[in-house]
Amino acid sequence: MMNKAIFYHAGCAICVEAEQQVLWALDKNRYEVEVVHLMENQPAIALAEQAGVKSVPALLLDGAVFHINFGASLEEVKGRCHA
Amino acid sequence: MMNKAIFYHAGCAICVEAEQQVLWALDKNRYEVEVVHLMENQPAIALAEQAGVKSVPALLLDGAVFHINFGASLEEVKGRCHA
Repeated sequence: MMNKAIFYHAGCAICVEAEQQVLWALDKNRYEVEVVHLMENQPAIALAEQAGVKSVPALLLDGAVFHINFGASLEEVKGRCHA
Repeated sequence: MMNKAIFYHAGCAICVEAEQQVLWALDKNRYEVEVVHLMENQPAIALAEQAGVKSVPALLLDGAVFHINFGASLEEVKGRCHA
């Protein structure tokens, strides 16, 4: 069975760097990778929050949250989406 | 040529979780992985600092720093090592 990786981002420069490097480094033979852009997929914000995501970029590996550097808080992402 | 990943940690619970999950998820066919325990290898603290590491756990991918969650600042690690 494949492991599951979900990368949450908001399109910021720090998000893009993490996506290009950390996500690229994952073993795609073991991980099914999903990339979720929270500014373009607002319903996913609630799912990210439920998973424990506090800021982006964040990587979920089989449900465990790893915040990678700091681009923006989830609150900031929500604020911009609702504006 | 292999890519180079260096994982800096200080033995804390958050470090161990990141090591077990993020490091495990890397593609070992493309990345040569080195794990550096800063409490047991104090000379490496200066190297980590030069590389831009501000806190542990941190993952260097070909020189780019990715701080993963937050276990302790590098200043805290230094303080404990000198104590």
